[in-house]
Amino acid sequence: MAYQLKKNFKLFALNSNQELAREMASLLGCQIGKCSVNHFSDGEIQIHIEESIRGSEVYLVQSTSHPSNEHIMELLIMIDALKRASAKAINVVMPYYSYARQDRKARSREPITAKLIANLLERAGATRVLTMDFHAPQVQGFFDIPVDHLIGMPIFTEYYEKKALEDVVVVAPHNGSVVRARKMASRLNAPIALIDRYHPERDMSEIMNIVGTIEGQNVILIDDLVDTAATITIAADALAEKGAKAIYACCTHAVLSGSAIDRIESSAIKELVVTNTIKIPEGIQLNKMVTLSVAPLFVDAIDRIHNEKAVSPLFE
Amino acid sequence: MAYQLKKNFKLFALNSNQELAREMASLLGCQIGKCSVNHFSDGEIQIHIEESIRGSEVYLVQSTSHPSNEHIMELLIMIDALKRASAKAINVVMPYYSYARQDRKARSREPITAKLIANLLERAGATRVLTMDFHAPQVQGFFDIPVDHLIGMPIFTEYYEKKALEDVVVVAPHNGSVVRARKMASRLNAPIALIDRYHPERDMSEIMNIVGTIEGQNVILIDDLVDTAATITIAADALAEKGAKAIYACCTHAVLSGSAIDRIESSAIKELVVTNTIKIPEGIQLNKMVTLSVAPLFVDAIDRIHNEKAVSPLFE
Amino acid sequence: MAYQLKKNFKLFALNSNQELAREMASLLGCQIGKCSVNHFSDGEIQIHIEESIRGSEVYLVQSTSHPSNEHIMELLIMIDALKRASAKAINVVMPYYSYARQDRKARSREPITAKLIANLLERAGATRVLTMDFHAPQVQGFFDIPVDHLIGMPIFTEYYEKKALEDVVVVAPHNGSVVRARKMASRLNAPIALIDRYHPERDMSEIMNIVGTIEGQNVILIDDLVDTAATITIAADALAEKGAKAIYACCTHAVLSGSAIDRIESSAIKELVVTNTIKIPEGIQLNKMVTLSVAPLFVDAIDRIHNEKAVSPLFE
Amino acid sequence: MAYQLKKNFKLFALNSNQELAREMASLLGCQIGKCSVNHFSDGEIQIHIEESIRGSEVYLVQSTSHPSNEHIMELLIMIDALKRASAKAINVVMPYYSYARQDRKARSREPITAKLIANLLERAGATRVLTMDFHAPQVQGFFDIPVDHLIGMPIFTEYYEKKALEDVVVVAPHNGSVVRARKMASRLNAPIALIDRYHPERDMSEIMNIVGTIEGQNVILIDDLVDTAATITIAADALAEKGAKAIYACCTHAVLSGSAIDRIESSAIKELVVTNTIKIPEGIQLNKMVTLSVAPLFVDAIDRIHNEKAVSPLFE
Amino acid sequence: MAYQLKKNFKLFALNSNQELAREMASLLGCQIGKCSVNHFSDGEIQIHIEESIRGSEVYLVQSTSHPSNEHIMELLIMIDALKRASAKAINVVMPYYSYARQDRKARSREPITAKLIANLLERAGATRVLTMDFHAPQVQGFFDIPVDHLIGMPIFTEYYEKKALEDVVVVAPHNGSVVRARKMASRLNAPIALIDRYHPERDMSEIMNIVGTIEGQNVILIDDLVDTAATITIAADALAEKGAKAIYACCTHAVLSGSAIDRIESSAIKELVVTNTIKIPEGIQLNKMVTLSVAPLFVDAIDRIHNEKAVSPLFE
Amino acid sequence: MAYQLKKNFKLFALNSNQELAREMASLLGCQIGKCSVNHFSDGEIQIHIEESIRGSEVYLVQSTSHPSNEHIMELLIMIDALKRASAKAINVVMPYYSYARQDRKARSREPITAKLIANLLERAGATRVLTMDFHAPQVQGFFDIPVDHLIGMPIFTEYYEKKALEDVVVVAPHNGSVVRARKMASRLNAPIALIDRYHPERDMSEIMNIVGTIEGQNVILIDDLVDTAATITIAADALAEKGAKAIYACCTHAVLSGSAIDRIESSAIKELVVTNTIKIPEGIQLNKMVTLSVAPLFVDAIDRIHNEKAVSPLFE
Repeated sequence: MAYQLKKNFKLFALNSNQELAREMASLLGCQIGKCSVNHFSDGEIQIHIEESIRGSEVYLVQSTSHPSNEHIMELLIMIDALKRASAKAINVVMPYYSYARQDRKARSREPITAKLIANLLERAGATRVLTMDFHAPQVQGFFDIPVDHLIGMPIFTEYYEKKALEDVVVVAPHNGSVVRARKMASRLNAPIALIDRYHPERDMSEIMNIVGTIEGQNVILIDDLVDTAATITIAADALAEKGAKAIYACCTHAVLSGSAIDRIESSAIKELVVTNTIKIPEGIQLNKMVTLSVAPLFVDAIDRIHNEKAVSPLFE
Repeated sequence: MAYQLKKNFKLFALNSNQELAREMASLLGCQIGKCSVNHFSDGEIQIHIEESIRGSEVYLVQSTSHPSNEHIMELLIMIDALKRASAKAINVVMPYYSYARQDRKARSREPITAKLIANLLERAGATRVLTMDFHAPQVQGFFDIPVDHLIGMPIFTEYYEKKALEDVVVVAPHNGSVVRARKMASRLNAPIALIDRYHPERDMSEIMNIVGTIEGQNVILIDDLVDTAATITIAADALAEKGAKAIYACCTHAVLSGSAIDRIESSAIKELVVTNTIKIPEGIQLNKMVTLSVAPLFVDAIDRIHNEKAVSPLFE
Repeated sequence: MAYQLKKNFKLFALNSNQELAREMASLLGCQIGKCSVNHFSDGEIQIHIEESIRGSEVYLVQSTSHPSNEHIMELLIMIDALKRASAKAINVVMPYYSYARQDRKARSREPITAKLIANLLERAGATRVLTMDFHAPQVQGFFDIPVDHLIGMPIFTEYYEKKALEDVVVVAPHNGSVVRARKMASRLNAPIALIDRYHPERDMSEIMNIVGTIEGQNVILIDDLVDTAATITIAADALAEKGAKAIYACCTHAVLSGSAIDRIESSAIKELVVTNTIKIPEGIQLNKMVTLSVAPLFVDAIDRIHNEKAVSPLFE
Repeated sequence: MAYQLKKNFKLFALNSNQELAREMASLLGCQIGKCSVNHFSDGEIQIHIEESIRGSEVYLVQSTSHPSNEHIMELLIMIDALKRASAKAINVVMPYYSYARQDRKARSREPITAKLIANLLERAGATRVLTMDFHAPQVQGFFDIPVDHLIGMPIFTEYYEKKALEDVVVVAPHNGSVVRARKMASRLNAPIALIDRYHPERDMSEIMNIVGTIEGQNVILIDDLVDTAATITIAADALAEKGAKAIYACCTHAVLSGSAIDRIESSAIKELVVTNTIKIPEGIQLNKMVTLSVAPLFVDAIDRIHNEKAVSPLFE
Repeated sequence: MAYQLKKNFKLFALNSNQELAREMASLLGCQIGKCSVNHFSDGEIQIHIEESIRGSEVYLVQSTSHPSNEHIMELLIMIDALKRASAKAINVVMPYYSYARQDRKARSREPITAKLIANLLERAGATRVLTMDFHAPQVQGFFDIPVDHLIGMPIFTEYYEKKALEDVVVVAPHNGSVVRARKMASRLNAPIALIDRYHPERDMSEIMNIVGTIEGQNVILIDDLVDTAATITIAADALAEKGAKAIYACCTHAVLSGSAIDRIESSAIKELVVTNTIKIPEGIQLNKMVTLSVAPLFVDAIDRIHNEKAVSPLFE
Repeated sequence: MAYQLKKNFKLFALNSNQELAREMASLLGCQIGKCSVNHFSDGEIQIHIEESIRGSEVYLVQSTSHPSNEHIMELLIMIDALKRASAKAINVVMPYYSYARQDRKARSREPITAKLIANLLERAGATRVLTMDFHAPQVQGFFDIPVDHLIGMPIFTEYYEKKALEDVVVVAPHNGSVVRARKMASRLNAPIALIDRYHPERDMSEIMNIVGTIEGQNVILIDDLVDTAATITIAADALAEKGAKAIYACCTHAVLSGSAIDRIESSAIKELVVTNTIKIPEGIQLNKMVTLSVAPLFVDAIDRIHNEKAVSPLFE
């Protein structure tokens, strides 16, 4: 498909995921705008946009993945520069929106950092956010500017449909993921199960209970992100013990921090499918991992936003 | 317990739940402030505060229950009047926060009305919100003013502990309620189960599946609210069919609209426990229903806010 | 006259006055946009816009007539939905703006609800208001967004000029309406008079005094709205007693609440002319009432706004 | 009456009406805060507050009388200085609020300057406005901060009651002043009349009509302000011609610009009563003019605001 | 060069510098928009825009030179009128931005008036500022809207290059002007010197010290503005005493208040070059003064903004 | 001196400079509030305030030194947590404010990051900033909340006065530091000189010129910060070459990034005096460096703010 871009279209990319941005540019048939982003020896960032963006409709690609705070500050500073340089629209394309798990006060006297980030983006001058798979969909409501919120699940579903697995059960690796599991299960016409973990009393060790039928089934574990991989690998091992036939896992955002790689490699997971919303650092080798690209989906969304066509068909 | 109220403390109540406000006033040992709230024959509301509130720390009680829009407008107009009359602080006490289920865009081109209400409250001049059991805890992040968010679950747990039920399983009546069910189950040291409902394909009839073990158990269904009661009664009947011993249900907010009363009466539910965050309309007779008061908890919270003591002990 | 509408023009109508919106659409030669507005059994409103409005210049028709608070909330929620769905401009067309009489603090500790509504509309995301005959023209200044404020008086004047009445005096039915009466009188080259009502002392009964000459004259009473009709019918009866030849009355907004219909029917008013800014509820029969349509005027204004031509010629 | 001022009370006065401020300070028993306000030779204003106001509740006296723009800028700059110097509250005491007549768009493409001034005051950092007799009471709604709006009419009424005039009629010198005239007339238990002026057709000369009975009466003309005095003197002369016994006039704000003094001196007005909200420039001699002080009323209001007592008794 | 203006381009000019605006209009090949700006006898300003600007991209020319506060208020009121009349963009062209020297708190409890003005402009509705030679470049950061900040130095440099002076030294007349002097010196490939003035102790008289080599040199004094001319003439006289060959001075903004003219005439300055950002009042005769026009530069900038081309080439 | 702290006083410190915070706490005689600040393995920060701060006046110590972006995000997140936990006032104590050098657009299409940070702090909820030695004093105007801006120069002056150096000249190491040099020189009753560096033409190598007399003098170089130390060490070496007797240097903020330590060690600087606004990382050994504490000055300022006494005496 050839995309029709108007003259005032500009695509920029900051440092977090240049690969993804290049893939988008290639699909769109455009260049990535020139700007220099320096990190000085004292830690400050200096940004200089090297071509005129006066009156432009800018799409600015930045996942706020590790190092999250550096990438957030890059983003805010770039937005400030774009605003002062008279951009007409500043569309922030955040394939991965960090801090999304801090979306409520779980205890007294905690911040709601996902809301703070939304406030900061709006204050800096963002006029739209295009993102994917918030930890909770309510985070859309943290913004007063329009948010186009893409969903990664159909990408995974399509992948598994091609595998033609039988006897599938979709499993939520923790209680908060049941709704997501149900959505995928409906597409696959499969039942769900869930891993229920809790501490029966303070200071007692955790109990893990599998709610639902697993034995002899092909399990698909689904979550929005895999960070330290503790939750998903513990779940997988418990499922294996309960007689699951094979264990697949899919997560949109491959945070993969700490011992994640080791945990996955040594777990009962047969294959982990992720997307490229976060760039996999070089040097990370993970035989079990398959990466699907979100670039086609994002590019479709950008085209629809740019040409003022409905984005809704992407969800159907 | 005797509460220490400073001279500038004022409690006001609008029309939605005067009973609850009176119970609060009685516990606090204070009068409800005088104000007239007229609804004219053309539908407009006229409010007049009939005593000076200059410099006062006002606590304004209003659940935005049915008729929701009337109650929201009453609230916004009263806040405007308080602001213009030089109140020092306008603490909005909303035992029930309506529209909380519209907390995300479930489809394209929907509003996020729970966020809109938050925006309107802040714009009108509210300086704090004290509320209970949002549909999703993320709604806290819709506000930039402080929110004190109370939890009704311990009230129910205490009630069930007195019943000394054995063989308890806590059941989520739909996928979105699993986290809530787990919290109660941990307090009761019980397992959980869930009712998984879905349409396998578009235009096919719904399938309902019980995930977890029910047979011979005393079931406690838990949800944040009971509106038309369709979800919870269908769940109860399915549980009964699967051999549950007895079926209890508890919901913080008794919306009870449409055919809710009939559905509950004719369902397999043995007893429904609700709170008085919403006033039960006179004339409603429901033998199976037990109402627990949230007044002591709210009054404790108001006292702590007023005297600048931590509210967190109320969650422990 | 054929109107030229650009491709991104969209007309939507909420529930208060679909007839007027359809008349506008017919004159404009366009369709009314598809959206569903449900009122649930618990009183909450759910809105879903059923066609893409991305990048559109939306004109949203809603009078906030009875039930006023329902219609205000419909309007605010729809604005939120339009904003989040990436409308380019949200022009709120409010033929009747309720709460306009609450435009100042008449007593201490009252709200200024007309300002509150303005604040709420702006906060929700409205970018322009097109309305008619505020109770006081100062309400324009309650907004920071542009307000196009149409005037109904020329519609009435044209009507009366066709009647070719002689010996006309234009009468203000209360002190607050003198400026409006003078404007009409200047067009008709007629003198004015006014009905002066007051309580000479607290607890004494009201005195009504007619200031100006009435005897043998054809009277035209003019006001911005007729609500309970008490003011205008008492005025009419007093004028009849003073020897007025015939008594005509005209009011832009036909609120007609309470006993308005009975009062008008049994009063000395010969004919009441109103407009259709508010939909007359079905079943209301009022032989004396003539309704003039504001649709042509609003449609002219919308065309001028849409095509960036001056709206001022509509006032000349 | 001795006023109780807390330690953090501060009264400041800018250049427009130091006499009034000194009278206030004398009644309050406090000093006026030290600050220098220089107007440089290039027209810029430099302000320096010469005593600490950290944590203070500041009352800042400034009428925005002639030269209006200089006084507005003085006020805004002082508010900025107070805000940056950590004042706790910035109560702007504006006995006269200029531009109040520009409170609506009388024609297309006019500003609403009275709203602009409100916006600027709030943006600069004002936290409250205490003022008197807006041209239209709706101007209160131009603010989102609390406005305490005093009324000068009782001062005039008390003055006329002492005169013990008989056969009084209160006359509105133009259509916009009828409501004000009625309020005074009710206090004096008198009828009203009004001066109705208009151009019957474009380019025809103005017609002036007296609506109501004047002959042999003692007339009191009332208006919010007297600027060029054209309106009130033309009215007075017409009333004299119609056989009025004696003509008194009262206006809160003595703007007195242009030929006002000459017009009043040579008019049929017997006595003009004004207040000192605006300082009468030195050198102006006006034998017919009586000035009543608003200082006691303002000082009462300041005391009530400062000590958080109701201001409403001042209106009763 | 012929400029291409779109249909919705409008140039307006207020009262401060109509000559410059006319020169701009002439270069652009457009008319100045019609608007009346009256100053009433009571000091209030009334503005009426006399042609439709609905949907227009307005460029509004106003230097806030003497009388500064009048010109600021004219500007704010006009912006309010433009906003309410539905201008699409309000580009404020301020060749001279007064109060720019009040850009920090030099002492405790001073305002930062340059920031206040920025806040007021944004609050009134300005969407862009185009200006020249702020006293400190940091004032750009006082705005959140885009600022296009032109530099007058190249105009002076070009002028001096034509003179082909030899043995040039560029001198900062006070410590705050060293950076500016260095910029010009680099263009002229010349060294710099500075006039260092200070009070060695409180109450001791000022000491003036010339840092750098002057003797036998052609001196160019450079500053952003010349106000009372005290600083620059004292500097010039000291330089003459130290053996400077000839003394030239250049300042962008010719404020020229107080005794500036006399001081310059009687000083050692051979020639003072200024621009026409501020209109030289009629009647001022200054033989030593050369005025260079900024109109071509501003017109270039307006064209680039209007046609969304980079403004940066104007700085190179 | 014993400080009087009210019951609601709370001092918190984030991670950048705990040593300085502890010194402050020790001087104030208070504890540092308990809060946990975790950096997760994925780079996100999690903050939990571990004691009630409801109604407290919080002083939050954080220099945004290296790693600057981490420290900024820590600060913003903590402010969000404090705001939501109902702090009464959030006073941000930033001994070092990073990004202060990015305070203007030096080139087109650059951000003004110092202003962005100010915007972000205000948006997050800061109510006051207490800081020291901005790069340019205009940065105060980037804030609308009160800023208390301390000056480090007197600390250095007092230090040098004790040394009783003779034949002192204060030297600005670059043109932007002349005003600062003059302020110190006035205290020391000394002359100034400056290092003038520039590129005579594009692509030509830099020329360095010393303006003023150096030979045989004791030089004190002064700057707001020392980052890579390139500027100050090149200056020192040039001064040595010109015959300076001894070269001292003082800089408030010891950023010391890149090769700063090596440069200083091998330079002509005899002694570098800095303050502890930034924590010197452990392991850095710099024999020539003397560190003076700003804790007493900050503690004095905090006491004055807390007890609402003038801060201005600290500048005299």
